[in-house]
Amino acid sequence: MTTVQAFAATEPGGRLSPFEYELGPIGDHDVDLAVESCGICHSDLSMLNNDWGMTSYPFVPGHEIIGTIRTVGGQVTNLREGDRVGVGWHSGYCMSCQTCMSGDHNLCTTAEGVIVGHHGGFADVVRAQAASAIKLPENMNAATAGPLLCGGITVFNPLVQYDVSPTASVGVIGIGGLGHMAIKFANAWGCHVTAFTSSDSKKQEAIEMGAHETVNSRNGDALATAAMRFDLLISTVNVPLDWNAYIGTLKPKGRLHIVGATLEPMDIGAMPIIMGQRAISGSPVGSPATIATMLAFAARHGIEPKTEHFPMAKANEALDHLRGGKARYRVVLDQ
Amino acid sequence: MTTVQAFAATEPGGRLSPFEYELGPIGDHDVDLAVESCGICHSDLSMLNNDWGMTSYPFVPGHEIIGTIRTVGGQVTNLREGDRVGVGWHSGYCMSCQTCMSGDHNLCTTAEGVIVGHHGGFADVVRAQAASAIKLPENMNAATAGPLLCGGITVFNPLVQYDVSPTASVGVIGIGGLGHMAIKFANAWGCHVTAFTSSDSKKQEAIEMGAHETVNSRNGDALATAAMRFDLLISTVNVPLDWNAYIGTLKPKGRLHIVGATLEPMDIGAMPIIMGQRAISGSPVGSPATIATMLAFAARHGIEPKTEHFPMAKANEALDHLRGGKARYRVVLDQ
Repeated sequence: MTTVQAFAATEPGGRLSPFEYELGPIGDHDVDLAVESCGICHSDLSMLNNDWGMTSYPFVPGHEIIGTIRTVGGQVTNLREGDRVGVGWHSGYCMSCQTCMSGDHNLCTTAEGVIVGHHGGFADVVRAQAASAIKLPENMNAATAGPLLCGGITVFNPLVQYDVSPTASVGVIGIGGLGHMAIKFANAWGCHVTAFTSSDSKKQEAIEMGAHETVNSRNGDALATAAMRFDLLISTVNVPLDWNAYIGTLKPKGRLHIVGATLEPMDIGAMPIIMGQRAISGSPVGSPATIATMLAFAARHGIEPKTEHFPMAKANEALDHLRGGKARYRVVLDQ
Repeated sequence: MTTVQAFAATEPGGRLSPFEYELGPIGDHDVDLAVESCGICHSDLSMLNNDWGMTSYPFVPGHEIIGTIRTVGGQVTNLREGDRVGVGWHSGYCMSCQTCMSGDHNLCTTAEGVIVGHHGGFADVVRAQAASAIKLPENMNAATAGPLLCGGITVFNPLVQYDVSPTASVGVIGIGGLGHMAIKFANAWGCHVTAFTSSDSKKQEAIEMGAHETVNSRNGDALATAAMRFDLLISTVNVPLDWNAYIGTLKPKGRLHIVGATLEPMDIGAMPIIMGQRAISGSPVGSPATIATMLAFAARHGIEPKTEHFPMAKANEALDHLRGGKARYRVVLDQ
């Protein structure tokens, strides 16, 4: 038996307080990680607040976990004690459905979320299926790697899924935790990168992170001027936008790709989609294979999330910082 | 000078009456066709009524034209007198924009529509840019080929554009002028084909045309039962549907493709798109190269639109037949 020292909320929106729980005998295909650090994603707040109606309490947030393997199950062959790994949104997959068998584990409808009916990474130990724990490249800075495991893979994955060409013009909507990594990935991918932001303070930072230009996302005229310029727009925001104005900035065959979870329906005009052969699509995180590809790509290109660090014991302060819209650009808790 | 004997409406929704107009000297890259037949598309009615605000009067409908070349311009090299050709929605392209130069002439923003500021195929002669007149395969039944040029290419094009696999499960929403050809093409493409229809009388016909099964499109329970079954849905209807219910029938990575022009915005929930990596897309007709590919495919597989024929002098009766929802499945006017 292992006693886990975690931080949990006991009710929707509640403050975190120390929480202990026991891990039973390890499963044949599982691993236990000694947590080194854990990024904080906006979805940790959504889950903490039970915005999606699927939170169970006590709730331990955290799904951008970097740790070292301390125990491996009897059938685990891909990892061993001492390996440094990352675990993101998912802590396990069914491994047998057509979707998993096709390599699209991230779309498995019965995949287990680290913080969905499972205790997350605001803790000293986390258990996960070995398939969901991805070994970090040797030359990666582990201290800042956590946010790659959820926010990073979420914006990297569309570049892989749609075989985006390095000749493409890519726009990133919303320059925050996800968006700033999207800029870095799209730049390293070889694309022309435009940052859509309404924040003056973020414009210069976006350029420094790899954007070739910026467009003021709250200026309708600026959007109109950008008509038919983008092959791909990646929207990272979780608020409704003037979707049809953004669709107007797509080239023929262009794609508006949604990775920010908006609960309000999107009012989409069919004619601009039809006439320009455009598409609207979306995706959640990425498969284990794509996470490994992303980590190798990030290490090769020296791509790091821009992080702010808090000790894990200050998790409430860190959450307040994120709630207040102050994160520049991703908050990481260190054990 | 050539005097064209056509049928035109002089006001929105007006009856057609005989109308003569003169063609000036032929352009270097143009051809004149002696019209043999012309299919009627629902968009002829929309244009006749000025539903899209872009109709000029007198208005000569008709953009599913089969004819024989009677005159070629001085620089035309791909066609000669006596060739039997088809002309669809477009009668010319700019031929110089990035979109045309990439082979996507159908997405050219300045392409000329046969019935948009140009007189259509309800006539004895039509002039068109040679690039927009596609030679029919020798072994094609010209008498029924007209509807392939607009309705046919519109539903064939997505199979090409998205490289649809013959292993795919394809659903066709709306079994009418476009939908019945979609069934035939998707069947010949090797796919599993499901027809969504609310008409009992069309169910058996859909099966005879190549659908492997039918789903009652007005039965919410039937849609719910079809959850996560389709790789591709092609929607041919021009009325709002419960789009989110149809999105629920898509597999992970599935696509809802819109070819029916709906003017009302589509209320799309983002979460089912994100969680299943699904897409919504649309497209208009097809490029000249894709039309030629489609005609060759149709000829090889013996795919013919199911047509009803009226003499061109009975164009008003033919339009009434279509207006009344009685077309089974495509109306053709014969010269």
